[in-house]
Amino acid sequence: MINIIGLGPNRENITLSALEALEKSDVIIGYKKYIDSISDLLEDKEIIKKGMGDEIARGDIAISKSIQGKTVALISSGDPGVFGMANVLFQIMAKYKDFDSKKDIKIFPGVSSVNYSASLLGAPLHDFAAISLSDILTPLSEIEKKIEYASRADFIIAIYNPISKTRKKPFRRFKEILMETKDPKTLIGIVDSSENLNKRKNTENLNKKEKNKNANFLSKTEIPSKTSVVTLDNLNEEDINMSTTLIVGNSSTYLQDGYMITPRGYVVKSQIHPLSEEFYTKYLAGESPIGPNETCEYYPCHDMEDGKQQCDFCYCPFYPCGDSSTGGEWIKGKNVWSCKDCKWIHEEATVECVKKSLNNILEEVDDLTIKKKELLKLRKHCISETRRKK
Amino acid sequence: MINIIGLGPNRENITLSALEALEKSDVIIGYKKYIDSISDLLEDKEIIKKGMGDEIARGDIAISKSIQGKTVALISSGDPGVFGMANVLFQIMAKYKDFDSKKDIKIFPGVSSVNYSASLLGAPLHDFAAISLSDILTPLSEIEKKIEYASRADFIIAIYNPISKTRKKPFRRFKEILMETKDPKTLIGIVDSSENLNKRKNTENLNKKEKNKNANFLSKTEIPSKTSVVTLDNLNEEDINMSTTLIVGNSSTYLQDGYMITPRGYVVKSQIHPLSEEFYTKYLAGESPIGPNETCEYYPCHDMEDGKQQCDFCYCPFYPCGDSSTGGEWIKGKNVWSCKDCKWIHEEATVECVKKSLNNILEEVDDLTIKKKELLKLRKHCISETRRKK
Repeated sequence: MINIIGLGPNRENITLSALEALEKSDVIIGYKKYIDSISDLLEDKEIIKKGMGDEIARGDIAISKSIQGKTVALISSGDPGVFGMANVLFQIMAKYKDFDSKKDIKIFPGVSSVNYSASLLGAPLHDFAAISLSDILTPLSEIEKKIEYASRADFIIAIYNPISKTRKKPFRRFKEILMETKDPKTLIGIVDSSENLNKRKNTENLNKKEKNKNANFLSKTEIPSKTSVVTLDNLNEEDINMSTTLIVGNSSTYLQDGYMITPRGYVVKSQIHPLSEEFYTKYLAGESPIGPNETCEYYPCHDMEDGKQQCDFCYCPFYPCGDSSTGGEWIKGKNVWSCKDCKWIHEEATVECVKKSLNNILEEVDDLTIKKKELLKLRKHCISETRRKK
Repeated sequence: MINIIGLGPNRENITLSALEALEKSDVIIGYKKYIDSISDLLEDKEIIKKGMGDEIARGDIAISKSIQGKTVALISSGDPGVFGMANVLFQIMAKYKDFDSKKDIKIFPGVSSVNYSASLLGAPLHDFAAISLSDILTPLSEIEKKIEYASRADFIIAIYNPISKTRKKPFRRFKEILMETKDPKTLIGIVDSSENLNKRKNTENLNKKEKNKNANFLSKTEIPSKTSVVTLDNLNEEDINMSTTLIVGNSSTYLQDGYMITPRGYVVKSQIHPLSEEFYTKYLAGESPIGPNETCEYYPCHDMEDGKQQCDFCYCPFYPCGDSSTGGEWIKGKNVWSCKDCKWIHEEATVECVKKSLNNILEEVDDLTIKKKELLKLRKHCISETRRKK
């Protein structure tokens, strides 16, 4: 019997069933560092440590031991199905007689690096793509294509195996392709777990007989992974190593209180402000301003880069959007959304995109609340349209 | 204090730290079904159940309770950062005074649905994209673009929220786009966890004082999720529901012993066969056959669809590739790779792609072993080239 076990990113994030499966196994096979990180759990077990790159050997040994009647734990860090040992084992199993893959294999999924890294950075994920930059057996052209397509489709991009001492080129191409396809101010979260992994070696033994085993297991202190958030144009090779995971934000990802956040659409319940109601009555009658309204006593009320503020949407049809990636923000202590620092709705490209579809949605002023979801979809569409690098 | 907790896909796959955080929380806030699934852990805690769609309300309540000094568990199934509660909380936190996001929030990642589903299907993952088909607040055009780009870049594609009683169109477009961009025989794994979730309601209470709590916690039997694997052209709306996760294979994904497997590149150590050595000596001298070698006594030794077998690579420069997606296979009980049922290397498009680069790699016969990694990269490149739908 072979248990393909995901250890997760560190001790405290192992699953109950993975821990149980480890305890029930006779033989533990895996990469040195990962075995060392849980050595206190592995007393009186047969341990087979292998180096990086010996994946096939690990799989062959696991199957032979299983055929001998042993219960084998074949371990990966993170999730064994994500660039882990599961694929390798399934590729070679057919070589063996007396090994029944249907009865003799069980996979224990683990928390993968993208999920762990996201949990340390804040809430950066939405639709996402996970890509390994290892070009040892994958043509660089394939990796480049995945990076480019994921970027153009505005996926959040999680990068595994970004770099090694001898493998720099894929990382350099990764940055170049992003610079060609994204805003240079796109946020990138960097999570470095190398210290963590090293520290995991130095765990003292556990008294397995103790009652509250997990509390004890958890009590092993670990150095938390180092995290930082940079903009794409400031992404430096020096800050990246083999144990780093990168999470590239999409066109809506923003930074708040040091957290990397990608907004998930939601409806903020609200009434229409009387002045907005007045404005949209005029708008629907075709009597609202078009372009910069320089006759307005408040013009320009927003400080635009190009100095030209489009006043077509003097009041925002999407108010309150609750999306801080626009520069808008909640007024602390009040349930009020402030658009003071949002310029987006007053930009030429935005006005053009919104006008294209707004008239199909907005037939009367009440539609501003009744058709809120349609409006928020139009808003999201124009956010991507206007922020996507042409 | 707010613990944003991922429960994982089911009880046995919860992490140690998530379980510990649940125990330490005073207030549990979440979607009804998820709370019911762990009710036996929540005695003497304040429980706040909310319906689907009440995400903002859940976040607001969590923050108010935290400000009152309570320790709150805000729960999501799977991973809270993947279409879960983490993003929602970070979007609204700025509304509140007396809430210090840096001190008052901790996220506990969980095993996400893509990792759990993969573990039940076999080893289908490689570079992958995760996409939600919910178009309630996301324009369908954005979802369509992500599906198309992920498909054209040959990502494995994991689909969350594929369908609901009232939301069918995104799923229909998903199938249409894949049919336009992929081989109709592309494999799709279907994992349905609805039974599992329902069953989880009926868990009896646990005696928390018991010593071996986890064993007891795990002993709760669950109906395993239903899994099946179909080809794209046979994907039926009737087989999909709200609790289904789909995993779409890439151009190399194959089925063996009922498992869905995407090969991860690896080097099979081997010597060159004397006949292959003889062949490549001729090949390098420009004396090997070009196109169908009808004068050969064995021609055609492979049964080609178009009846035309290209003999340019009478012996495969990539032998042994160990990749069953070609039709090749391990001879059981022997460490021998058989190419009997592989037609790929004898197809016109393959020969064309391989020849384009082979001569830059192969300068002498020994390069067949010395430059194995370069050869395997070329092979992988041509696999994608020849299998990618034009």
